[in-house]
Amino acid sequence: MNSDHKKSWLKKRRSRRNDVSAAQLLTEIQAGSRDALSRSITLLESTKVADQVLAQEVLKDCLEIKNDQTIRIGITGVPGVGKSSFIEIFGLWLIEQGKQVAILAIDPSSASNSGSILGDKTRMNELSMREEAFIRPSPAGTSLGGVARKTRESIILCEAAGFDVVLVETVGVGQSEGMVHSMVDFFLLLMLSGAGDELQGIKRGIMELADLLVVNKADGDNLTKAKVAARTYKNALHLFPGKENRWVAETAISSSVEKPKMDEIWAVIERFENHTKENGHFLRHRNQQNLHWFKEELTHQLLQLAGQNVDAKKHRKELENQVEKGTVSPFEAADCWIKKWILKNGI
Amino acid sequence: MNSDHKKSWLKKRRSRRNDVSAAQLLTEIQAGSRDALSRSITLLESTKVADQVLAQEVLKDCLEIKNDQTIRIGITGVPGVGKSSFIEIFGLWLIEQGKQVAILAIDPSSASNSGSILGDKTRMNELSMREEAFIRPSPAGTSLGGVARKTRESIILCEAAGFDVVLVETVGVGQSEGMVHSMVDFFLLLMLSGAGDELQGIKRGIMELADLLVVNKADGDNLTKAKVAARTYKNALHLFPGKENRWVAETAISSSVEKPKMDEIWAVIERFENHTKENGHFLRHRNQQNLHWFKEELTHQLLQLAGQNVDAKKHRKELENQVEKGTVSPFEAADCWIKKWILKNGI
Repeated sequence: MNSDHKKSWLKKRRSRRNDVSAAQLLTEIQAGSRDALSRSITLLESTKVADQVLAQEVLKDCLEIKNDQTIRIGITGVPGVGKSSFIEIFGLWLIEQGKQVAILAIDPSSASNSGSILGDKTRMNELSMREEAFIRPSPAGTSLGGVARKTRESIILCEAAGFDVVLVETVGVGQSEGMVHSMVDFFLLLMLSGAGDELQGIKRGIMELADLLVVNKADGDNLTKAKVAARTYKNALHLFPGKENRWVAETAISSSVEKPKMDEIWAVIERFENHTKENGHFLRHRNQQNLHWFKEELTHQLLQLAGQNVDAKKHRKELENQVEKGTVSPFEAADCWIKKWILKNGI
Repeated sequence: MNSDHKKSWLKKRRSRRNDVSAAQLLTEIQAGSRDALSRSITLLESTKVADQVLAQEVLKDCLEIKNDQTIRIGITGVPGVGKSSFIEIFGLWLIEQGKQVAILAIDPSSASNSGSILGDKTRMNELSMREEAFIRPSPAGTSLGGVARKTRESIILCEAAGFDVVLVETVGVGQSEGMVHSMVDFFLLLMLSGAGDELQGIKRGIMELADLLVVNKADGDNLTKAKVAARTYKNALHLFPGKENRWVAETAISSSVEKPKMDEIWAVIERFENHTKENGHFLRHRNQQNLHWFKEELTHQLLQLAGQNVDAKKHRKELENQVEKGTVSPFEAADCWIKKWILKNGI
């Protein structure tokens, strides 16, 4: 498309889209308009082609604005660990330090029902009313892959909007923790003091991914127990395999009742940032994450396309049943399906 | 193909394949012929279409022989932890208990060079000469996906051949531990006493997958240190998130010099087997693994097919570079590639 052609095409589209162009949205986002940011994220979430085209254009422009000053922090923990209260306090503390904070949520359960972890805004009452904060819940009714894509792209928009800290929250169930881990710089795991049953919900292998483990609800009768737990975890974390970034996970305690020491938690994050920026891992890690998501998305789209045909889908379901029962090898079943639906017909 | 037609076709193929039919191979495998087992695995590894057809026929027959008495044990640990010596001693001990043991290897490094972890047979000198044992190295020059498929299918053949225990060994590098974990019932991690540097090679998240953690080289001056390490690990393992099968990982020590206590290690495995068979997780886990591999293989084959075209491959490489640099969103890049190479041309 040549330049003139593009201009006239953009003009036409602008009129269809209430006169909003990508350039306009970008200008407003950079000027700090929460409304423009919100609208752009809504466009990212939209399934309409025109919205997607516009959204991708905004995204592309945002990618060009390198904002290396942001840090992306993932926060997870089982339901009941006190994630929302923690984020409320942490967010407000960050604002006090002069920072702007965006909070994005990943909630796989919102794919099956209309609820959402951040939908219940009352849980972050004060924070949600602050101008320095931007809270965006997971869109309902989307697949986990869709939620991941939306969140990844929203991070970019938030960074272009000048946010210093992007918090990505997830409920500690299903595959969501692993997903969040692969889109943040720093991974914070909230836990409770009485280790054991309350950990059932967390996926195996997640604890080893944590950069900081915070024992929450460290107040009242629970304080001593929480301190002991933090120390025990600290010793245990030393036994874990070393990380590529040579960062040894730390522990801390927190409470939403007693005076919470957010400065100590932030100090750990700053130490991590300095450490990984010095050894070059910070940027390398982001690049690896980009590649990871490219491959994930390619695979996801290929599988989706391959499953469009109703008969192909039905056949795949049948094969899955046989595979599950062990009457056919998973590999033979895959061969069979590919031969029938891809090699013969294309996708 | 009707039955008569099939018979004549089989006959023709038999003459080409030195008069070996799937039925014959199966009979010989079940009669305990190591030679027939070896030849069948070689057929599985072969890239020739005729070999693959025959191999898949044998595999199908083997799948019908349900051998629920076997247990599949994954063994991993970083290079230098003493895997081969451990397997030699463990294998010989199992044979003494009247068991037949098959040992399969997964070695991602064999994909790039012609070496193989089990190629060096001198490392399992005695075991490799025993009739009750069957040792099969990873085929060289295959992709990791190819190695996984071969190993999964070889497990089925070994079970049909009447082996009681199938050990799947892997070097503790790259993606191989996760792969092994998703094809075994029980996951044994070998470690050394001086936790820290020697763990660098193990992928994060693997420790939490272990059902049994064995501190190796517990001899001489090292014995006390190893005992302490085992105890420390035991305490740490209790802090891990609970597993779906409600099994709390155990620890043990071992040595190839001092009298190794293989009975204790086997007792843990038997306890695990009873526990998971009672709560139904044993079979459920195998079924989940089957489904996992079906999806993995589908994705793998789709990506392979999509990458056949040289220009498509080149374009993908270019996009990967841009994605890595962060100049284009991973999702936008995937869209772009899919539109150009799949939606327009099919694969």
